[in-house]
Amino acid sequence: MLDVCLLGTSGMMPLPRRALTSLMTRFNGSSLLIDCGEGTQVSIREKGWSVNPIDTICFTHYHGDHVSGIPGLLLSMGNADRKAPLTMIGPKGLAKVINSLRVIAPGLPFDINYIELYEPVERLEMKGYILEAFKVNHSVTCYGYNIIIPRGGKFSVERAKALGIPVNLWNPLQKGNVVEYEGEIYTSDMVLGEPRKGIKVTYCTDTRPVPLISEMAKNADLFVCEGMYGEKEKEEKAKQNRHMTIYEAADIGRAANVKEQWLTHYSPSFVRVDQYMDEVTKIFDRVVPGKDRKSITLDFEEE
Amino acid sequence: MLDVCLLGTSGMMPLPRRALTSLMTRFNGSSLLIDCGEGTQVSIREKGWSVNPIDTICFTHYHGDHVSGIPGLLLSMGNADRKAPLTMIGPKGLAKVINSLRVIAPGLPFDINYIELYEPVERLEMKGYILEAFKVNHSVTCYGYNIIIPRGGKFSVERAKALGIPVNLWNPLQKGNVVEYEGEIYTSDMVLGEPRKGIKVTYCTDTRPVPLISEMAKNADLFVCEGMYGEKEKEEKAKQNRHMTIYEAADIGRAANVKEQWLTHYSPSFVRVDQYMDEVTKIFDRVVPGKDRKSITLDFEEE
Repeated sequence: MLDVCLLGTSGMMPLPRRALTSLMTRFNGSSLLIDCGEGTQVSIREKGWSVNPIDTICFTHYHGDHVSGIPGLLLSMGNADRKAPLTMIGPKGLAKVINSLRVIAPGLPFDINYIELYEPVERLEMKGYILEAFKVNHSVTCYGYNIIIPRGGKFSVERAKALGIPVNLWNPLQKGNVVEYEGEIYTSDMVLGEPRKGIKVTYCTDTRPVPLISEMAKNADLFVCEGMYGEKEKEEKAKQNRHMTIYEAADIGRAANVKEQWLTHYSPSFVRVDQYMDEVTKIFDRVVPGKDRKSITLDFEEE
Repeated sequence: MLDVCLLGTSGMMPLPRRALTSLMTRFNGSSLLIDCGEGTQVSIREKGWSVNPIDTICFTHYHGDHVSGIPGLLLSMGNADRKAPLTMIGPKGLAKVINSLRVIAPGLPFDINYIELYEPVERLEMKGYILEAFKVNHSVTCYGYNIIIPRGGKFSVERAKALGIPVNLWNPLQKGNVVEYEGEIYTSDMVLGEPRKGIKVTYCTDTRPVPLISEMAKNADLFVCEGMYGEKEKEEKAKQNRHMTIYEAADIGRAANVKEQWLTHYSPSFVRVDQYMDEVTKIFDRVVPGKDRKSITLDFEEE
């Protein structure tokens, strides 16, 4: 139902087998990208996914390792003769940054709409899903994101029958519509139960641990979180650079009670992530190291 | 003596195993880069070369596939705490393009010097080598480049002895110095023969075939030339987009009598280059298809 792919797992600079951190999701024919460092478009191709259905690109912040792939991606979209508009979302300054980078990608055959974020938490209605942006704590303004697929209440055949609702109206009511039929008005709350648990993916990188992260990631099906350093002695460096260690990341995942947690945005000097996982899973046993093009398909829970 | 590596061979967009066209050379401790599309820094790492000794970056023109790797490369150089200045060379507009891209790479710890090209042919004295830029014919102003390692004349022991030049002066004279010793002045032309054939590499991409290219590439040891299309029916498309076919490229190599020719800057749709080589080598048998990270070490000819 919701496909999620971690396109890369590197922080600061791309390495031969570790692309810069970026996440892509596919839902209902529309694709979303969060962050787009140099090499993102190659990773999409390597995964076998397409850039064409991407209609939204979110940025956590404008450090180069999260944005440098944009001119190339836009050019490739333009070369593929894209006409559909593209929405970009990010902290204040978005239009200025992108327009500056577009010095080498002028004259694109599609429009770009910019949505700049200002509030600590912002909620946007997208095509069939909800996007939540929440401010984290980095050296520059930086946001994490939730992708939420809501799920309506269960349809009650018993209530529909008891209310004498004609069978041909069941389907539109199940989809949440209001229906007028033979002088009567029917609403979906007449036949649907309470909204059920949907799907939630939380993406969060380039930040110190702050309470808002575990609040926003609460009960997420997947929590993708930076883990810049694994070496215990780098805790100070993490604080200085406003990043976090994989232990701090695991603390957040545990506090948020997420179903699964993937680490990403490793320092180029942090090579053997696997060797540190024993320590990490002592803190929270649902943490796994993210790897380039690791992906998952998330579906609504069976009932 | 001169190491040459073709970092990538793709045109327009990077592909999973075909990086954007870029060339790197190493000579006498200083490295030169020509063109820097998205992914160039990864290809350098994959080759096992270093970005640190790069002191000069040349651009043929400012289409995204030749420039989009610059912000990331500059950031990596900055993160490695580079202090040495960097020289950039390219057609008019260079400083504007790079400064615009630097919106995501501000505050670098090193200076960038810009040299903008205006004349049809320009000749620059570099660290021990000569760089020649020559204007080609693309949809925007575009230059090809020659890297030339000059070689002085042969030292004549006979002449040195005949002129009674003390043996301890032979070495500085051989290096081209003027030496004053015991009231006498000695010059290198007293003991050196005519300048000998040095090393020449010609790089040329994104252009229609024009006579100046074969003139500039005359007798080059290596000629790296675009070959955007292999399919005969794409000749018209090559003309329209101001590129060339691999057959047109081979014509130039033959006219220039180069020692070896590598093709590069393939269209993303041009996949099986090898299959077209029989036809190409009928035109000029020293043409081979460039491949990512194909490299060669060129030395002065033995005598």
